[in-house]
Amino acid sequence: MREEHFLQTLHFNCLLDEAKSTNQSIPIVLPVSTLDKDRLDGTSAISLYFNGICYAIMRKPEFYHHRKEERVARQFGITSKDHPYIKMVYESGDWLVGGELEVLKRVQWGDELDHYRYTPNELRRKFKLMGADAVFAFQLRNPIHNGHALLMTDTRRQLKDRGYRKPVLLLHPLGGWTKEDDVPLHTRMLQHQAVLDEGLLDRFSTILAIFPSPMMYAGPTEVQWHAKARMNAGANFYIVGRDPAGMPHPRGKDGSLDGNLYDVTHGSRVLKMAPGLNSLEIIPFRVAAYDCKNKKMDFFDPTRKEDFEFISGTKMRTLARNGDNPPEGFMAPKAWKILADYYQSLVKDKY
Amino acid sequence: MREEHFLQTLHFNCLLDEAKSTNQSIPIVLPVSTLDKDRLDGTSAISLYFNGICYAIMRKPEFYHHRKEERVARQFGITSKDHPYIKMVYESGDWLVGGELEVLKRVQWGDELDHYRYTPNELRRKFKLMGADAVFAFQLRNPIHNGHALLMTDTRRQLKDRGYRKPVLLLHPLGGWTKEDDVPLHTRMLQHQAVLDEGLLDRFSTILAIFPSPMMYAGPTEVQWHAKARMNAGANFYIVGRDPAGMPHPRGKDGSLDGNLYDVTHGSRVLKMAPGLNSLEIIPFRVAAYDCKNKKMDFFDPTRKEDFEFISGTKMRTLARNGDNPPEGFMAPKAWKILADYYQSLVKDKY
Repeated sequence: MREEHFLQTLHFNCLLDEAKSTNQSIPIVLPVSTLDKDRLDGTSAISLYFNGICYAIMRKPEFYHHRKEERVARQFGITSKDHPYIKMVYESGDWLVGGELEVLKRVQWGDELDHYRYTPNELRRKFKLMGADAVFAFQLRNPIHNGHALLMTDTRRQLKDRGYRKPVLLLHPLGGWTKEDDVPLHTRMLQHQAVLDEGLLDRFSTILAIFPSPMMYAGPTEVQWHAKARMNAGANFYIVGRDPAGMPHPRGKDGSLDGNLYDVTHGSRVLKMAPGLNSLEIIPFRVAAYDCKNKKMDFFDPTRKEDFEFISGTKMRTLARNGDNPPEGFMAPKAWKILADYYQSLVKDKY
Repeated sequence: MREEHFLQTLHFNCLLDEAKSTNQSIPIVLPVSTLDKDRLDGTSAISLYFNGICYAIMRKPEFYHHRKEERVARQFGITSKDHPYIKMVYESGDWLVGGELEVLKRVQWGDELDHYRYTPNELRRKFKLMGADAVFAFQLRNPIHNGHALLMTDTRRQLKDRGYRKPVLLLHPLGGWTKEDDVPLHTRMLQHQAVLDEGLLDRFSTILAIFPSPMMYAGPTEVQWHAKARMNAGANFYIVGRDPAGMPHPRGKDGSLDGNLYDVTHGSRVLKMAPGLNSLEIIPFRVAAYDCKNKKMDFFDPTRKEDFEFISGTKMRTLARNGDNPPEGFMAPKAWKILADYYQSLVKDKY
């Protein structure tokens, strides 16, 4: 981004070049050091290398000041360096450089997951080949339990009830940087594939692909980016839950009433009102929990709340680490095994 | 504002109710204490009193959490309590209340300045009565020197050159709260009136009125509000200078490269791109300085920069306090006297 787009993103969560607003809530910028800026300012083009390979040329580069405090305040609604992504922003270069990009080569990561990576146009072609008349996207950065599967299956049912014949699910886990205590991408992809292989999601009407973005934990600002990127890839429906892209407040209960960085309702409310997302219908997430009576994940029923148990990420981690099994019907067994193996390898690494 | 509008203001600097965006960069909210919230939540209407007089009724009130840190981050791009307006936000109530307002009575301040206070509709009527075919607005919170007067006179000339026959100036000093070291409203109004009385501005094509807003020192976010409010009052042209609504960074040079809270170019750039201000043309401010050779304020000419002196607010204050006169042609003498009297009264108050 040049500074013009950077300012539009921060102030309006939109790009305003054309008559119609394009939603863009997250700045996409390249920080550089003062050394690099002094060396390169005034050149007509810059080659962009990664691991010794030139992937792109940036023409007519424009250098501008990386106003970190103002950027993070407007992007995250907080300036604390105890926020893990804000910490990285502060550690990055003092200048930003933007320009016209000529991309020379597709990035291959060589991590055995490249066959899950598609461009937005490739995804659109896949949906077309499958004969999709509706595409619903599910953003996730955690393992899939049967509550998620129920939610996606139920969304498909709803769309069929509305007359769509071939609704296709874009199962689109986030593949960029995440917090250290999140499950790594490789394990998550194996786990998601196991959920498909065991038939908890219909593999013939689902595309499992990697969403190549870092996780920013920017709440209502970031959820717009999550939705917009899927709209670009051909989605017409976007499932959004409670507190999307949220995290605990770095100061805990001293930082906010409930200890969360963002109000848990703001993400879906801001997403519904956001300009430039008009071709996307937002589907609110229904809360699922473990029904101890019927031994399965089901939509929470407040009239018999005593039957339901919410199985937290922390509880799931503890079970997996100790080699214990979760209650029957919580997660596909093959998928659970992948997760358990991962957490147990962490324990082993410790000793 | 209800929470829906509060969120739209913070995230998009716009109200999005209708098909067209309305620019609204600044939240207009009523903070209340937890005590008042507990006492009033659930009532169908609230009476709003000031100094024992009921001015309005707020119907269907909605209470919501005043998320101060997030609000100031998104509104100001900084969260420091050393910013004087942010300090007041933190000291205000923990809840906000919004609703439908029924205004019963016009506010009279009884400060001898009420005849300078007009509603936007009253201003529009005045412009019509004057036969204005263009209205250009000048926002200020400081005394007017001859450089400002030159700028306004030159803008009028430009508009006449473009074919307007009766361009009217809306001279619209900010009348709400300002920082302690700013000149108080009463002194400023006397000073502005003296500039008109001495003929440095044409009193027959100028409306001097009070803009009833507090000064927030919110830079690029606030300048949109300054422009939008004048657009509502009938202005077609808005003069904007360097660093509008700016202030020094609370941490000085440790806080930013040049010691300013905002990049001095961002205000006018953000204003030009802001959605919902389409009926307003932004006129950039040309820098004026004291021409020591010709003994008058003139537009700065970089080809003979050695002839020009920039007379800062600090220098002006020092001269006034010491009973010294500024260089000839810097300010209308009657207007200077008002300022000098004010600063000398401060010195006297000290002893």
